[in-house]
Amino acid sequence: MDFSSDTSAPAHPRVMEALARVNAGHQSSYGNDAVTAELRGLLARTLEIEDFDFWLCASGTASNALALSCFCPPTGAILCHAEAHIARDERGAPEFFSGGGKLQLLGGDGAQIEETELRDALARIDHGFVHETPAHVLSLTNLTESGTAYPAARIAHYAALAKEAGLTVHLDGARIANALVSMGASLADMSWRAGTDVLCLGLTKTGAMGCEIIVLFGEARTKFNELKARAKRSGHMPPKMRYLAAQAIALLTDGLWLDLARNANQRAQEVANLLCRRPGTELVHPVHGNEVFVRLDDETAGRLRDAGAVFYTWLDGSSRLVTSWQTGADTIDQLASVLD
Amino acid sequence: MDFSSDTSAPAHPRVMEALARVNAGHQSSYGNDAVTAELRGLLARTLEIEDFDFWLCASGTASNALALSCFCPPTGAILCHAEAHIARDERGAPEFFSGGGKLQLLGGDGAQIEETELRDALARIDHGFVHETPAHVLSLTNLTESGTAYPAARIAHYAALAKEAGLTVHLDGARIANALVSMGASLADMSWRAGTDVLCLGLTKTGAMGCEIIVLFGEARTKFNELKARAKRSGHMPPKMRYLAAQAIALLTDGLWLDLARNANQRAQEVANLLCRRPGTELVHPVHGNEVFVRLDDETAGRLRDAGAVFYTWLDGSSRLVTSWQTGADTIDQLASVLD
Amino acid sequence: MDFSSDTSAPAHPRVMEALARVNAGHQSSYGNDAVTAELRGLLARTLEIEDFDFWLCASGTASNALALSCFCPPTGAILCHAEAHIARDERGAPEFFSGGGKLQLLGGDGAQIEETELRDALARIDHGFVHETPAHVLSLTNLTESGTAYPAARIAHYAALAKEAGLTVHLDGARIANALVSMGASLADMSWRAGTDVLCLGLTKTGAMGCEIIVLFGEARTKFNELKARAKRSGHMPPKMRYLAAQAIALLTDGLWLDLARNANQRAQEVANLLCRRPGTELVHPVHGNEVFVRLDDETAGRLRDAGAVFYTWLDGSSRLVTSWQTGADTIDQLASVLD
Amino acid sequence: MDFSSDTSAPAHPRVMEALARVNAGHQSSYGNDAVTAELRGLLARTLEIEDFDFWLCASGTASNALALSCFCPPTGAILCHAEAHIARDERGAPEFFSGGGKLQLLGGDGAQIEETELRDALARIDHGFVHETPAHVLSLTNLTESGTAYPAARIAHYAALAKEAGLTVHLDGARIANALVSMGASLADMSWRAGTDVLCLGLTKTGAMGCEIIVLFGEARTKFNELKARAKRSGHMPPKMRYLAAQAIALLTDGLWLDLARNANQRAQEVANLLCRRPGTELVHPVHGNEVFVRLDDETAGRLRDAGAVFYTWLDGSSRLVTSWQTGADTIDQLASVLD
Repeated sequence: MDFSSDTSAPAHPRVMEALARVNAGHQSSYGNDAVTAELRGLLARTLEIEDFDFWLCASGTASNALALSCFCPPTGAILCHAEAHIARDERGAPEFFSGGGKLQLLGGDGAQIEETELRDALARIDHGFVHETPAHVLSLTNLTESGTAYPAARIAHYAALAKEAGLTVHLDGARIANALVSMGASLADMSWRAGTDVLCLGLTKTGAMGCEIIVLFGEARTKFNELKARAKRSGHMPPKMRYLAAQAIALLTDGLWLDLARNANQRAQEVANLLCRRPGTELVHPVHGNEVFVRLDDETAGRLRDAGAVFYTWLDGSSRLVTSWQTGADTIDQLASVLD
Repeated sequence: MDFSSDTSAPAHPRVMEALARVNAGHQSSYGNDAVTAELRGLLARTLEIEDFDFWLCASGTASNALALSCFCPPTGAILCHAEAHIARDERGAPEFFSGGGKLQLLGGDGAQIEETELRDALARIDHGFVHETPAHVLSLTNLTESGTAYPAARIAHYAALAKEAGLTVHLDGARIANALVSMGASLADMSWRAGTDVLCLGLTKTGAMGCEIIVLFGEARTKFNELKARAKRSGHMPPKMRYLAAQAIALLTDGLWLDLARNANQRAQEVANLLCRRPGTELVHPVHGNEVFVRLDDETAGRLRDAGAVFYTWLDGSSRLVTSWQTGADTIDQLASVLD
Repeated sequence: MDFSSDTSAPAHPRVMEALARVNAGHQSSYGNDAVTAELRGLLARTLEIEDFDFWLCASGTASNALALSCFCPPTGAILCHAEAHIARDERGAPEFFSGGGKLQLLGGDGAQIEETELRDALARIDHGFVHETPAHVLSLTNLTESGTAYPAARIAHYAALAKEAGLTVHLDGARIANALVSMGASLADMSWRAGTDVLCLGLTKTGAMGCEIIVLFGEARTKFNELKARAKRSGHMPPKMRYLAAQAIALLTDGLWLDLARNANQRAQEVANLLCRRPGTELVHPVHGNEVFVRLDDETAGRLRDAGAVFYTWLDGSSRLVTSWQTGADTIDQLASVLD
Repeated sequence: MDFSSDTSAPAHPRVMEALARVNAGHQSSYGNDAVTAELRGLLARTLEIEDFDFWLCASGTASNALALSCFCPPTGAILCHAEAHIARDERGAPEFFSGGGKLQLLGGDGAQIEETELRDALARIDHGFVHETPAHVLSLTNLTESGTAYPAARIAHYAALAKEAGLTVHLDGARIANALVSMGASLADMSWRAGTDVLCLGLTKTGAMGCEIIVLFGEARTKFNELKARAKRSGHMPPKMRYLAAQAIALLTDGLWLDLARNANQRAQEVANLLCRRPGTELVHPVHGNEVFVRLDDETAGRLRDAGAVFYTWLDGSSRLVTSWQTGADTIDQLASVLD
């Protein structure tokens, strides 16, 4: 019973098949190959739009930091939640890639930004006041770090506020599939139709070996050349790009990525339900995706550990249990038997 | 007849098998997995030493830049050849990772640093003179960018000079296998026994999907934690590290990597021999590895292009033909028939 | 009645005399001059210690950022108050100079860090957990941005906590003279005896044209060469250093700097007293130095504006009135007559 | 007989008078003062243009690096001479301020860029080739580091070539007054009329305490806000800006700066004439400004040292003697008597 992280799961078999399929013959390097070209069409259908640019990246940290660095100058700031992955878990990647830009941290429950905090931060921006660092980007995360999902309408609302203030809107979608399934939204509704300018579409946690897609929409496309130059100099322009593209093709084809997320989400609900039946146990955040944050009583925690269940203790003392595409009914049954 | 680059070749089948082998069950993320642990032993045997630390990276650019940034402070410089990959083809990666350090460019034939230039540069270092940027690192490349190989003894000689001046020695080994085979040297002889402090052991061009190993020896190991922190913030700490480790295991096992390099080198010799039989054609550099730099007469060039041969024109007007693990006797036969 | 800032006051006449005095003959450049050498002795007496290194800087922002960048690596963080000048008013200078380090913001009244917040932050440091950014420096400001003063004992207490956790202690003393006078402490007591490793001793706001002194104590002195290299490359190694040294000599001689701060502090008290006599007016923070933060009723604010008084409205809606070495009894009389 | 540098000379008395003149009353901080406003008009007349923006800086290194960082992105390069001050004597300042941009070094006699080298470098720029770093800025220095002067027409010619290739043209004018006097050109002819986009107008070496003016012309003015933000975060926005403006006013008024440069240049000619009368002595570069580079025979060198003359030995073994506004006929007489 490994609930440590969706990143400790293996890649989905269809990903491996896709890698094998493209592993023949010469292909141009650095993204000029036929596999990456094939991905473009599939991505257009997935996004329901033709007007976009994209770049492939093996790392979610790099994907976010590269995207942000194209829109936040060294003299600017990025608005994000105080619990955001970019703020807490990337060892200063946005600061590094942006050349010393700042993160301006906002609060709100469930790692979702509170509207009043966002409005206050936007109102404070004064490009004419040279001493303070003005925000240039709003970064939202869906699923959030607390496993909750923003509905597409809230993304759209926040994006509209941000754009009115001249900001670019970035969506960290390391677990976007889980959010889409949970909210019943399409990727288009959650991204460009909601005003997202740059999307980091994560597939690693969903079932890839390591594959993230940075997508630029509309005006943001003017930064595509800069994005590639920054990718190059940060070591995120792998010569054999076909192997990244193949992973994305495998997952986006026939909606496999959403099916995998659907399984993970359902298993998380089952985990939550089993745990919440225990009297001393309560959820810390609503379970919208594949992460369960729960305050466990000592006996429950003890039983789990004794049974070899693996999960992390969070900063606030709660426990985080993560499911993945691979979490099966057998794992849930095992959990049930431990808790009964 | 694709001679464009060894990076346009696919991965070796045993690499794909290794990926499939490790694609099961949960593994701890970020390098704490059993596959990476397994690699350690194999690497120790390959290096003939136990006293080292290593980090896996999908990108050669990142591998070099990360390594260099641990040893060259923002206020320092890196000595390298004017034609070095880190100077010419990485879009300022060393400058970016080091926080604005400098490359100090040295000359020499065949992209090998001339000893007098090295000695002059070392003699000029004056840490007490705050206005000039003192060199902290000597970076050597083997194979060089011109396809020639430094013998291990020359590496050792330069490393000794550099260390006497207080520098750290970095070896960019993106095509180190080709150099080892060509020079008949062991990896140990070419790296730590020759005074290399930090080795970037490239496997991507040899036959991996994307896999480079940064190896720290001796004193340099004190920088291992810094290396990891820098890897993290630059997006080079992939969660599913097992897939990098598996590639390395496949290639290092039973010396496969050297066998593949041996084939590439031999094919390059055959290509060179065929081309040099043409009256107007001459080599620009000796062919020590898998790269042939040749000045082609118009007729030869025309025949090659007409036959669909793919290769690059270099800055000096010469042509570069690169072979790989996959270049077979059939390709050489085809080339022969075109040139006859 | 200009209460806008102590930086809008001119330099003290003795500063101008000192500049004139040193304006003759040749002097070595870049700090190797006789005037800077003379300052060293005076500074030793002022600090009551011989074991220190120092560097002169015309800018407080640069003084802080240079100091911090020697102790906080790009992969590290600086603990400071959320209202600190380095966090709010320096446009990302610490992030720029450190190469993308982070500020970790702590709360507390009067812009003084709350002890529990400090303890929590220190307890969370985990150098072995590569994903989060560990704090390397504690930065305290005295006077704080709210015009309150830390007593020397509190600095010492916080410094002890920080050092136990392996941090370096930085003191932003842009208005240190005001804090010393207010707390009745010596500079030694407030700096090295209290565990400060690196002091930014500000004289600009006290009465210089532009002069700040970065002082390194004890172990921190090992960073002196790095400090100079960083000063050089950031344009803070002026060739004609004698003119910075002369300003410092003028102000430190016979305790002039403390006398000037004493006047400013006393005038601030008088301003506060006059304002607080008004029924609707109340102090937002205690007045420990030369800054009065006050919530003005509309009538009082109106009278002041009508009489041409200059002062800033702060982010929280309060008014900030700052006095300086030049604020005289006449200004206080004028204020009294406006308010009567 | 101090010929070490023009930066070891004191400030001109009129500079000191100007400082005293502005040292009264309150002035707005950070460049919003009446003195800086006054300077604007004087600068317009000096430049013979109204359409410009400017920023004051106490440091030449900062002035160059700030200017360059507004026009060279982190992913770009700056073309300059291999001997340029920005390349050799600023400890990586351009790399630091630009966030890791590159200097691309060109050759040519007398530290003047050779036209063919410039043309080759411009021809190689390929923004579509992501691996190499494209040049964005051409940086010229006048006087050069070898004491020679570009005529205005050559600046204009090079600027035209650079602009055709899409580059911005930067002029490092740390000793621009010496070049103007030497070439008989106006500042307008040497700067904006010659196609310079951003001029670093140095006054420190001419006779200020420390004062450089960054001037943006035409299109380059769109970067003025960025320039200010970068100045702020690098500590080059001194609160009491009036004291920088006053220095500039003193020197630009009635062409004092040119008079001072004229004296320095004349004295340099006299020094050169005296030295060249010695049989074994020859100039290394023509003397266009206030710097004499000369190869001294041992006897001459010995006599000079014995007489207490101060001057530097250059990297190529030659001797550099620098004159300043303060070098008088008495110094020349003294030199003559030593050499006779």
